Amino acid sequence: MIVTVKSQCSQREFDKLISWIKSLGLDTHLSQGANQTVIGLIGDTSKVDMELLQSLEMVEAVTRIQEPFKNANRKFHPQDSIIDVSGVKFGGKHFPIIAGPCSVESEAQVIAIAEAVKASGATLLRGGAFKPRTSPYAFQGMGVKGLDILRKAREITGLPIVTEIMSEKFIDDFQDVDLVQIGARNMQNFDLLKAVGRLGKPVLLKRGLANTIQEWLMSAEYIMSEGNDNIILCERGIRTFEPYTRNTLDLSAIPILKEKTHLPVIVDPSHASGLSRLVKPMSLASVGAGADGLIIEVHNNPAKALCDGAQSLRPEQFDDVVKAIDVMLPLVNKER
Amino acid sequence: MIVTVKSQCSQREFDKLISWIKSLGLDTHLSQGANQTVIGLIGDTSKVDMELLQSLEMVEAVTRIQEPFKNANRKFHPQDSIIDVSGVKFGGKHFPIIAGPCSVESEAQVIAIAEAVKASGATLLRGGAFKPRTSPYAFQGMGVKGLDILRKAREITGLPIVTEIMSEKFIDDFQDVDLVQIGARNMQNFDLLKAVGRLGKPVLLKRGLANTIQEWLMSAEYIMSEGNDNIILCERGIRTFEPYTRNTLDLSAIPILKEKTHLPVIVDPSHASGLSRLVKPMSLASVGAGADGLIIEVHNNPAKALCDGAQSLRPEQFDDVVKAIDVMLPLVNKER
Amino acid sequence: MIVTVKSQCSQREFDKLISWIKSLGLDTHLSQGANQTVIGLIGDTSKVDMELLQSLEMVEAVTRIQEPFKNANRKFHPQDSIIDVSGVKFGGKHFPIIAGPCSVESEAQVIAIAEAVKASGATLLRGGAFKPRTSPYAFQGMGVKGLDILRKAREITGLPIVTEIMSEKFIDDFQDVDLVQIGARNMQNFDLLKAVGRLGKPVLLKRGLANTIQEWLMSAEYIMSEGNDNIILCERGIRTFEPYTRNTLDLSAIPILKEKTHLPVIVDPSHASGLSRLVKPMSLASVGAGADGLIIEVHNNPAKALCDGAQSLRPEQFDDVVKAIDVMLPLVNKER
Amino acid sequence: MIVTVKSQCSQREFDKLISWIKSLGLDTHLSQGANQTVIGLIGDTSKVDMELLQSLEMVEAVTRIQEPFKNANRKFHPQDSIIDVSGVKFGGKHFPIIAGPCSVESEAQVIAIAEAVKASGATLLRGGAFKPRTSPYAFQGMGVKGLDILRKAREITGLPIVTEIMSEKFIDDFQDVDLVQIGARNMQNFDLLKAVGRLGKPVLLKRGLANTIQEWLMSAEYIMSEGNDNIILCERGIRTFEPYTRNTLDLSAIPILKEKTHLPVIVDPSHASGLSRLVKPMSLASVGAGADGLIIEVHNNPAKALCDGAQSLRPEQFDDVVKAIDVMLPLVNKER
Repeated sequence: MIVTVKSQCSQREFDKLISWIKSLGLDTHLSQGANQTVIGLIGDTSKVDMELLQSLEMVEAVTRIQEPFKNANRKFHPQDSIIDVSGVKFGGKHFPIIAGPCSVESEAQVIAIAEAVKASGATLLRGGAFKPRTSPYAFQGMGVKGLDILRKAREITGLPIVTEIMSEKFIDDFQDVDLVQIGARNMQNFDLLKAVGRLGKPVLLKRGLANTIQEWLMSAEYIMSEGNDNIILCERGIRTFEPYTRNTLDLSAIPILKEKTHLPVIVDPSHASGLSRLVKPMSLASVGAGADGLIIEVHNNPAKALCDGAQSLRPEQFDDVVKAIDVMLPLVNKER
Repeated sequence: MIVTVKSQCSQREFDKLISWIKSLGLDTHLSQGANQTVIGLIGDTSKVDMELLQSLEMVEAVTRIQEPFKNANRKFHPQDSIIDVSGVKFGGKHFPIIAGPCSVESEAQVIAIAEAVKASGATLLRGGAFKPRTSPYAFQGMGVKGLDILRKAREITGLPIVTEIMSEKFIDDFQDVDLVQIGARNMQNFDLLKAVGRLGKPVLLKRGLANTIQEWLMSAEYIMSEGNDNIILCERGIRTFEPYTRNTLDLSAIPILKEKTHLPVIVDPSHASGLSRLVKPMSLASVGAGADGLIIEVHNNPAKALCDGAQSLRPEQFDDVVKAIDVMLPLVNKER
Repeated sequence: MIVTVKSQCSQREFDKLISWIKSLGLDTHLSQGANQTVIGLIGDTSKVDMELLQSLEMVEAVTRIQEPFKNANRKFHPQDSIIDVSGVKFGGKHFPIIAGPCSVESEAQVIAIAEAVKASGATLLRGGAFKPRTSPYAFQGMGVKGLDILRKAREITGLPIVTEIMSEKFIDDFQDVDLVQIGARNMQNFDLLKAVGRLGKPVLLKRGLANTIQEWLMSAEYIMSEGNDNIILCERGIRTFEPYTRNTLDLSAIPILKEKTHLPVIVDPSHASGLSRLVKPMSLASVGAGADGLIIEVHNNPAKALCDGAQSLRPEQFDDVVKAIDVMLPLVNKER
Repeated sequence: MIVTVKSQCSQREFDKLISWIKSLGLDTHLSQGANQTVIGLIGDTSKVDMELLQSLEMVEAVTRIQEPFKNANRKFHPQDSIIDVSGVKFGGKHFPIIAGPCSVESEAQVIAIAEAVKASGATLLRGGAFKPRTSPYAFQGMGVKGLDILRKAREITGLPIVTEIMSEKFIDDFQDVDLVQIGARNMQNFDLLKAVGRLGKPVLLKRGLANTIQEWLMSAEYIMSEGNDNIILCERGIRTFEPYTRNTLDLSAIPILKEKTHLPVIVDPSHASGLSRLVKPMSLASVGAGADGLIIEVHNNPAKALCDGAQSLRPEQFDDVVKAIDVMLPLVNKER
């Protein structure tokens, strides 16, 4: 960490700053320029409160050189982490596809979709039992009953299940969920992060709507600091000014994450745009960018043809997307 | 709600859409144009899933006319709500100032600051016992012990206390907190919103970093839908591309909120910029924009002069800000 | 266009609004609801000032149904436009690659790079003669002398040339430039757009840093309204809050543009991130998303090894990127 | 400027970097840490290409300590600049108000408004002769004929005139315009900036829709580098994700600019929100934030009552805003 001190800073203030830095167990290295003095902080600066430093009157600028995430940092763990989710591997050469409905609505619906997506090549089943909804008047999901339906579908198809936890109070109900999802809105719900850290199950950590890559890795760090290293990151779009898509999928985040962290990164192309017709091109784009997998919404409701064309694909469309991905995987040294 | 249907839509698809709308208990009004048909939905559309409609292939555009928030809507409650927080009133002509330290660090610190800010005119005491921190390695606050210190300070000074709740599991510890704060990162932690709704205490609901005004009002609606109408909104800056300030304080949100809702709106000028020297101009700007109050960080630590100049004001600087506000309040028909 | 009128609107005001709409040559269709009246505007609404309508006190909301761009609109031109740039085709099945240095620095440099990129498969040569720089103290490009160097390189290699115009006053110097680039900062320099419209040469129109897709198409419309339909759009990243990349490449814009317009869309993966190591993954991602081509920075300066690793690729790295793209093109029905 | 070099950097690469830095006329100061080496660049770094440095493979991070703007920098010009626009002063204790119609439509219209706003206390007249419009099909302004009307209004009322220049080719027509406006879309039209720099008339430089404060000051620097120091900055809202307002007025920019530059800063409260009912609160907020003046749209068209309620105020509403501002000015040590 580098602190640039203003030229007007008095010697007394400067000495206090140096003492305070040393009281944190750090060494300092001074560099005197014409208009400012630069202090290099030597040692483990991950616990230094950068914002506090930045807000001091005598300080012109603070630059963090050492990244604030440690367990998630590729520098200290150069190999890709391989995360095993009940036998399905994420990371390295692996490219698993998670598929299933947005919401769990009934046993028949979930089992039908699970069987269809399995036939097309999906190796995990997703489905929302608890649904984060902007409006309190919208359907909030089936809750624990939805979890039972997912377990039933797992029993029948053998697919491990992925579902979102929204509150610590249901943590016991997630003991046998294969991959526990933290949604975008809860990416900085720090108590929930700690709770899933302690739970010890693999975690699918979605990026917050307006969170930087560094903040995202710090949220992974929260889970890891509780002893749980089984984290899969999921890019799902960020909030921008563009109205034609619900969110802007940030695919550049993938190669950046590949440098910064050893954790696998998958993409959710269904939620980012909110448009099912973008799922195929954005899935192929994700493969090109170096993603480690995909999570895709698939719906199947022949009785309710209204939903044709919603943000979910129909099973036959999903099948087409998987086939295209399969042709592309060898080009990026991946396999399913 | 208005749904514009594409010209290519078949009669069969169109009829299904109409039946589905009617199955929600709504009436429809059709308007046939040259290139598209427009369907007006008549009735209570607050429960219609707008995103589902938008994602249908036959649909060109969906416009919500009726706002999705009801309890928070000024249309159905034209008078300003006056929220009483243990005798201190927010809304209407009132302009209370909340002040105190960022974090509760010790009894002596909190009591000293509480007495100082009370002397300057603050009528509520703020202080963080549970601290949301980006890094798991940073100080997470004193927790329930911090709440005890705040209670002690209340006992001595008579100031009602304001402090942040981060997790439902501590809800019982907040039974006698006068004003329960929901922080920006938890603005869409829907289970926590419902929990404070059931708690029944007045709630200070901060705007999320990247949330629209409408989403913010929908979060208020979550609390209100549990029967708790005592909500004070707090603008604290949104995330933009500008790096000179930590966040961009969105003061235009104040007159917009005054139109949309009857709930009071206060401003946090300390957190938005992260710079204590912006607190005074942005406090006066908030008064000009029509805010109903302010929440200001004040620090007092003569032993640790390092913190002079941090994002918190010193008590004498706070005193200066309050004096300037007091001169300005009559111009906007407010009083303290 | 649909105008929702507030319930408080007087009959007199309402009648005036209707007369004004009719004075624009439009018909109206009224739909009376419980709380509001909805006016459908029938006819060519592309000239209606939507913002004026939106700002009227009596108006609750305005929704544009008909898109404001006409010449660029795929609705009225369902086939892909094929743009011919001195024999190199953009659009449809074609996938040309433009390559060359960021700035023209010398004849030797440009010719060496031109020959190298041609050998790897580039079919157009790029190079900046006029450089838009944030600082007036930075190198502003060689200007017209740089154009001469590009012409020389074209003569030797046969590659058509692509270079940026920054001011109308140099329009005559661009008479024989094969593809005239409008940079991101000038995307809404309307006089320059009209000037290149009149010039009649093919135009490479980059997306502005913070412009929506619709605004971008309206800028294409400016050029087309002067009778020049030879426009190639270029996505180059938008401004967001993420600091790890200089801009956020918005690849979802590609499938969206493919729906909205018949114009070809290429991607600039070099400028978006500012990191040369992202060029390969983001090039493959662009192919996956459906792009019609790429524009890539290539540098070659063995004497100045400092520049190794800059945002430009070295020729051998470029060669590797082209080889990877070539393997991928058949999957998306494209060819070079 | 501080350059942090990666630990893997070879001695040979490192030596080349040092030589290159010295070739720019700068000295270096090295600071060796455990995992990285930090190079301090000593001397005038305003011409160093920071992005080039940042993109080098061996470089971990680059921090600019010295701000890249010089003429606009308050460090080298501690007193407020007072800009004299044909006798009306901006900066210091002055608080002029510019008012007038959005577009010049007719002589009668402009003169009537000019007289009305003068009576209310405006000291400059604004009016658009050349109008930047998103659509080529929208009214583009009266052009040079509009300038004649403004001159006529100046002759009659004595008010200096403010109007926007959109293209260098009209520069001669702006020779006698008192205050030449550069609009938001042209903030980085560098050739136009240089042209108004050479013109020598006072310039009103609006902030670009998505430009940082630093980029804005660099655009001022372009004008100043041509010898023209008479610049007034104008905040007019930035692009964010919030849809209720057209743009988000960034009032925190005002106190930040007051620190960074000696140039005066005014606010345009009409364009930021696009809502006339926000003009009064945002005008008062601007005064509180420390603005040096305002530019307000005023319309007067009794024959066309449609425009009542548009983003422009009517003269009587403007009068009310000015009266409120006048009461507030003494609180911030300003006067009209």
